[in-house]
Amino acid sequence: MKKVKRVYTFGNGRAEGDATLRDLLGGKGANLAEMNKIGVPVPPGFTITTDTCNDYYTVGQDEIIAQLTEEVDAAIAQTEESMNCKFGDASNPLLLSVRSGARASMPGMMDTILNLGLNDEVAAGLVAKTGNPHFVYDSYRRFVQMYGDVVLGMKPENKEDIDPFEAIIEEVKTARGVHLDKDLTVEDLQNLVERFKKAIKDQTGKDFPTDPKEQLWGAVCAVFRSWMNERAILYRKMEGIPAEWGTAVNVQAMVFGNMGETSATGVCFSRDAGNGENVFNGEYLVNAQGEDVVAGIRTPQQITKLGAQRWAERAGISEEERVAKYPSMEEAMPEIYTELNALQNKLEQHYRDMQDMEFTVQEGKLWFLQTRNGKRTGTAMVKIAMDLLAEGMIDEKTAIKRCEPNKLDELLHPVFNKQALTTAKEITRGLPASPGAACGQIVFHADDAEKWAEEGRKVIMVRIETSPEDLAGMAAAEGILTARGGMTSHAAVVARGMGKCCVSGAGAIQIDYKTRTIEVDGLKFKEGDYISLNGTTGCVYAGEIPTEAAELSGDFSKLMELCSKYSKLNVRTNADTPHDAKVAKDFGAVGIGLCRTEHMFFEAEKIVAMREMILSETAEGREKALEKILPYQKSDFLGIFRAMDGCPVNVRLLDPPLHEFVPHDNAGQEEMAKAMGVTVEYIRQRVNSLVEANPMLGHRGCRLGNTYPEITAMQTRAILGAAVELKREGLNPMPEIMVPLTGILHEFEAQEKVIRNTAAKLFEEEGIEVDFKVGTMIEIPRAALTADRIATRAEYFSFGTNDLTQMTFGYSRDDIASFLPIYLEKKILKVDPFQVLDQNGVGQLVQMAVDKGRSVRPELKCGICGEHGGEPSSVKFCHKVGLNYVSCSPFRVPIARLAAAQAAIEE
Amino acid sequence: MKKVKRVYTFGNGRAEGDATLRDLLGGKGANLAEMNKIGVPVPPGFTITTDTCNDYYTVGQDEIIAQLTEEVDAAIAQTEESMNCKFGDASNPLLLSVRSGARASMPGMMDTILNLGLNDEVAAGLVAKTGNPHFVYDSYRRFVQMYGDVVLGMKPENKEDIDPFEAIIEEVKTARGVHLDKDLTVEDLQNLVERFKKAIKDQTGKDFPTDPKEQLWGAVCAVFRSWMNERAILYRKMEGIPAEWGTAVNVQAMVFGNMGETSATGVCFSRDAGNGENVFNGEYLVNAQGEDVVAGIRTPQQITKLGAQRWAERAGISEEERVAKYPSMEEAMPEIYTELNALQNKLEQHYRDMQDMEFTVQEGKLWFLQTRNGKRTGTAMVKIAMDLLAEGMIDEKTAIKRCEPNKLDELLHPVFNKQALTTAKEITRGLPASPGAACGQIVFHADDAEKWAEEGRKVIMVRIETSPEDLAGMAAAEGILTARGGMTSHAAVVARGMGKCCVSGAGAIQIDYKTRTIEVDGLKFKEGDYISLNGTTGCVYAGEIPTEAAELSGDFSKLMELCSKYSKLNVRTNADTPHDAKVAKDFGAVGIGLCRTEHMFFEAEKIVAMREMILSETAEGREKALEKILPYQKSDFLGIFRAMDGCPVNVRLLDPPLHEFVPHDNAGQEEMAKAMGVTVEYIRQRVNSLVEANPMLGHRGCRLGNTYPEITAMQTRAILGAAVELKREGLNPMPEIMVPLTGILHEFEAQEKVIRNTAAKLFEEEGIEVDFKVGTMIEIPRAALTADRIATRAEYFSFGTNDLTQMTFGYSRDDIASFLPIYLEKKILKVDPFQVLDQNGVGQLVQMAVDKGRSVRPELKCGICGEHGGEPSSVKFCHKVGLNYVSCSPFRVPIARLAAAQAAIEE
Repeated sequence: MKKVKRVYTFGNGRAEGDATLRDLLGGKGANLAEMNKIGVPVPPGFTITTDTCNDYYTVGQDEIIAQLTEEVDAAIAQTEESMNCKFGDASNPLLLSVRSGARASMPGMMDTILNLGLNDEVAAGLVAKTGNPHFVYDSYRRFVQMYGDVVLGMKPENKEDIDPFEAIIEEVKTARGVHLDKDLTVEDLQNLVERFKKAIKDQTGKDFPTDPKEQLWGAVCAVFRSWMNERAILYRKMEGIPAEWGTAVNVQAMVFGNMGETSATGVCFSRDAGNGENVFNGEYLVNAQGEDVVAGIRTPQQITKLGAQRWAERAGISEEERVAKYPSMEEAMPEIYTELNALQNKLEQHYRDMQDMEFTVQEGKLWFLQTRNGKRTGTAMVKIAMDLLAEGMIDEKTAIKRCEPNKLDELLHPVFNKQALTTAKEITRGLPASPGAACGQIVFHADDAEKWAEEGRKVIMVRIETSPEDLAGMAAAEGILTARGGMTSHAAVVARGMGKCCVSGAGAIQIDYKTRTIEVDGLKFKEGDYISLNGTTGCVYAGEIPTEAAELSGDFSKLMELCSKYSKLNVRTNADTPHDAKVAKDFGAVGIGLCRTEHMFFEAEKIVAMREMILSETAEGREKALEKILPYQKSDFLGIFRAMDGCPVNVRLLDPPLHEFVPHDNAGQEEMAKAMGVTVEYIRQRVNSLVEANPMLGHRGCRLGNTYPEITAMQTRAILGAAVELKREGLNPMPEIMVPLTGILHEFEAQEKVIRNTAAKLFEEEGIEVDFKVGTMIEIPRAALTADRIATRAEYFSFGTNDLTQMTFGYSRDDIASFLPIYLEKKILKVDPFQVLDQNGVGQLVQMAVDKGRSVRPELKCGICGEHGGEPSSVKFCHKVGLNYVSCSPFRVPIARLAAAQAAIEE
Repeated sequence: MKKVKRVYTFGNGRAEGDATLRDLLGGKGANLAEMNKIGVPVPPGFTITTDTCNDYYTVGQDEIIAQLTEEVDAAIAQTEESMNCKFGDASNPLLLSVRSGARASMPGMMDTILNLGLNDEVAAGLVAKTGNPHFVYDSYRRFVQMYGDVVLGMKPENKEDIDPFEAIIEEVKTARGVHLDKDLTVEDLQNLVERFKKAIKDQTGKDFPTDPKEQLWGAVCAVFRSWMNERAILYRKMEGIPAEWGTAVNVQAMVFGNMGETSATGVCFSRDAGNGENVFNGEYLVNAQGEDVVAGIRTPQQITKLGAQRWAERAGISEEERVAKYPSMEEAMPEIYTELNALQNKLEQHYRDMQDMEFTVQEGKLWFLQTRNGKRTGTAMVKIAMDLLAEGMIDEKTAIKRCEPNKLDELLHPVFNKQALTTAKEITRGLPASPGAACGQIVFHADDAEKWAEEGRKVIMVRIETSPEDLAGMAAAEGILTARGGMTSHAAVVARGMGKCCVSGAGAIQIDYKTRTIEVDGLKFKEGDYISLNGTTGCVYAGEIPTEAAELSGDFSKLMELCSKYSKLNVRTNADTPHDAKVAKDFGAVGIGLCRTEHMFFEAEKIVAMREMILSETAEGREKALEKILPYQKSDFLGIFRAMDGCPVNVRLLDPPLHEFVPHDNAGQEEMAKAMGVTVEYIRQRVNSLVEANPMLGHRGCRLGNTYPEITAMQTRAILGAAVELKREGLNPMPEIMVPLTGILHEFEAQEKVIRNTAAKLFEEEGIEVDFKVGTMIEIPRAALTADRIATRAEYFSFGTNDLTQMTFGYSRDDIASFLPIYLEKKILKVDPFQVLDQNGVGQLVQMAVDKGRSVRPELKCGICGEHGGEPSSVKFCHKVGLNYVSCSPFRVPIARLAAAQAAIEE
């Protein structure tokens, strides 16, 4: 058997891999190889493949090390040659970084170890070589700290405890009377290394390994293990990344941004990740290692002068002060900046997308550590796609594919009500880390955020800084506020990825986790108090500020136009009111796919008449009550048809069990008794007679219309009466009348007869006719199974995938909470089938119904009006099975339009 | 266009039709033609086709008469020639009978008119010809009476009113001081004719038609109309006869059984319709018309001497008295009897089945009016089929096909408990008109019978005599008791058809409809009092006598053996107790297809432990309670496996929502609080937390097992622990463990894992292994749709068509009553889909699941365990789609076996 290649080397403009090997080398590894090939300076090293990670879990640690040793030794030798130094050699040592790198980016989810290869001898040798003992022992203590945490499991015992290493640092600083890490002497750092090693031995019982090779295998296996840590599993679940993908391990020669004032480290973006603007931007720290930027422990400086100026303006700092205290890299290191700018440009041109890059400057030499397509906000996503298109960098189809449908939601997210904002009390300002507006109650810990959110409370998670452990809490929160960290801090990056409002680096805020309070400029807020965040401006407000819908940019409109150009699927909306209809039409909905009529019955006078109708025992009594309802219903439809003039409006006849309409309380029953002139006892009995064991499977839908045809007749008169009136006004109403819950052809036939007879009579009375269609919901499995019979009469199908999911799975949406969480946890279900259409089961019925229906009526129009109509993967399925349209809530119309266009393009 | 032939003539040993034209000529018409062809004397005449009936409803009365006139005129001319007399001719008149005749027998459902062609002139002429004015005017008054009722709509105004014609007869009799019809003089009869005509004119406004042709068309169209009368529609619905079949009309020359003492009329059977005995039998009346026998107005005499002797013995009449007063036809009219006997034999030989024949003797000449395959009791059905087989008249397959599966139910019907019978008070004796035992509360009117039965009460319908209007009431009653009428009376024939216990002609009973009481030998019973009937002996008892299962005959066993020889489908039973298992095994069940475990939890100690398990909040608490339940469960399975030794026993894991087990009353909740040592409030909260909006779609089935795997583990231990114990004893337990409500492969996998792990542990502990299978219910539409995935793990499928019907239709069995009756009435549904498997919808899923499942596991065993498993048409469907077995309640096992054999034969 041919031996599998597990290690791919790169360096000095050569590489064994390239960008096409992403699955095998992970995103980072593939890009490191690719960057080498296009002439971007990258520290040499090698990538251990993702398959090896899977094998690690199969064959175990010892076996995988045995299998890797030969290849890794060779790769180290090659790296040593490139860097002209030697791993473990005291006189001229090579230090290594060990990083994870999966197929899909999972920022901060897995572990990293830097400065690997140090021990007392090597450190001494490195001092001799560099003449910089402070740098060496600072690197050494960082290495011991990181290795102790990641590989040897040296963690705080309680989540509220400080990191054990940080505690030692604090002790040393206190004893020495210094405040900043950099004020520690070489002896202090040497002391720290010894104390760290002792603490590790005391807490974990493990000796710190001195053999660099042993250190390396420990680190490599720790990265493999970190693939299965809790936060990585949670992240994969949220992002739909399969566990089988595994992570690669990237081992590279260390380069140091902390070798003095000619060294630096930074993160940069080829365009603005917040708003999409085409300006190079980023942050860097002089004399620092990369983790200092990403972790947000020090607030970094801007790379470009423009960025620095904007930053100062927001912070209220004068240009003089800025130039003096906060120079940009462009000003402070102009040569390096020029090289960096040229290379970032080269990378964007190469990848034809906005790049998110990490770099280090070691003693005046620039190294790129990583490049990847940058995460961005929804607004930036749309702008970048449209800009790249305008710049000729990508074509229309690529521009559409570059946009994630769900992220459009951010653009549509509410902003603060402008009026309310004028009186809002701004308490401080931070960085506009992730746009949007949010308000909620202050919480400090991730698990509290989760718990409160489960209880239905809106929360703002407030942290000094966030870490990957906070992920679930961040997902549960409305917004995130941090006191430290920049635009590329963990909080900022993750929040943008989630499309969640975030203000970071609001340094004026003092956070006390113990008392669960914050203080800012003398104002105190405690856990549970309301605050509001504007992630677009960085403003933080006291109290609750009402929010409202966003205004949409020209880029958004351009994207939507492109979508229409490529989509085959139309997008309609679910709307029961003229207002919703108008909102949806403005978002590009081309009709109403589902107009429910039951909500209309709940307003004051209507509900009394409705109840009278339900509680009557005779058809005459019901007809009398329905006569009262008719004018109200007609007026509802007048408004909706007017708002959707010229577009089809699909009205569903009364659907819910009658039980939902009647009064269950004494007062309501007494009122009804008075209104109807009967005893309360009578009302009570009638109400009780409507109780059902399983109302979802009971007397509802067309079973109502078929037992009380007078309801169907009244609704038909209201719908078509409104249409007649508008047609007289010169408008173009396009009513469609839909029979709900059909399971048997004859059910539909009987309802259709009532509808057509009522229509014929109405048109004769009015002397005017309106074109209309009569169709049916397909939401009962039997309807899908016998669609070839039902389509002989029904003019269109609308898939009610909510009910179809209920019946196909046998799940009641109202009762699923007792087992769904366990099913998701045990992975019996991958997703909630009420959110994402179950293509294997429910989808099979949809496909079958479309095919059978069209076998007897080739022009049969088919649409979907369940919640799934606005969920991208479900929309794509709808395209695939040949539906004519999807229908969704107004605010999901753009998402559906984008998904529909992508489906057509991907075909 | 070729003119459609609408009229088929017959007579004098010639006929245009024959038995093969049953669809076109109806059963009676085809047999009349056939009898002519094989030399049985039949009054000549003609048949108007069934298609003409349909056309009557399409084109209307005038048009259909216009289309028929030419053919009917020609056919009348031919009949006149055969009979040598003339329709409407005063001097030598031909009188006609007009009768319905559909493809399937619908006894008494439609209308008949006799003696048609009479008017004042013809009557006078007939008197001149026959010299028998009493016969003529008696015929005339019968004709007017019948025609007035059937054609002119002369009906009693209220159901409790006496027939208006009978009222006039009573008046005349009272005025004349006579008691019997036959004591009326010629003048009385003439008087009746006039009074009848006047009453018709007064009540209906119509003149009685004097033109015989006009009379004929009126009668023909009335027969067509009677196809759509209420009772015919109800009968067709019950028997599954399509409305499109239509009825033929048979017009025949009248022959008269009432032309004096050498005339007679009768009904006879080639074998005993009650018990199947191969003895010619029947009843006749001298000097009477056929309706007198069928209507049961006079109690008729026996045809054979043997029959007469048996009758007398039952009635306690001495042989001397019998010979003197009640001679059989064999004794009274030996020549006619010999001819009749020879002809009935010829007919049975010809049709190779038991014949039900009507005949008339007119002045010494025998005419057959009708022959058809005789309706029979279930017992007779089996005996006749086995006898005909033994006699070489039919082959095995035909014998099987001759038996209606549902009728076997009668054989299995309970009989009286013998012990209880020894102390039972016999109050009178009638005729053993339809076998079986029944007891219930007395009711007198059909609609009361229906109403009481709907309320869940068991009723015995008591009538002086029954009429087709009583049909629905008879169907609702447990048994029928009549004071008048013989073994061939309406009550007897219909009850046998329904397989319902009936005692007829219990003349000692005086029935008072007004006071709703009966009196017999001085004992009074009122409506609502209990009586008991033995339809096999004719005995009537006071009060309620407990009933028990019947013993089965050797013929029954022979039939069952034949079934096994031809069936491909196995029959298992649904049984939860050793007793049920034994009963079913005795009926030939070859295993248990569904052993529900939930019923086992309801017994005293078990329910407390079960509740403790449910109400615990922790897995530990549940496990502790389950430990208590384990020995009980194991002992249940010991009994069942023992009873089904060597046969597979398919045990379904716990299925119903937990809510069903917990106490909802205060006392029960207090008891549980005490038992568990917690507060009542705690119990109440836990109970309330289990309430679901739609329990049918909620937390049940394997959703329980997957959220509380400890339940599955306990049940597995109980099942396999019992099997291990029996295997040690040397028995051969064959457990199958079934996961309920699977919808997703992973649900099954997770449960299977628990089962197999528990089994492995148990077998290791016990040091002994038992073979077992793990399979799944297919009762969720999604399971059927994804059966190819589920079958990768499941070793067998069992279709739970109850739930599958619920989910496929979206019907809750518990709530269907609010619309099912209306759906059946409006024919939206033809049958209740919970009784008869919906082949178009639910059946499609079954077929799909079988095909998909076997595509990945060709040996996949498939069965059905819903209610449908014992319904013949559903069993045949199961055969067709290739199931391995059906499973049904013990008492339906023989029915399923017969249906399975028929399915295989019909293939």
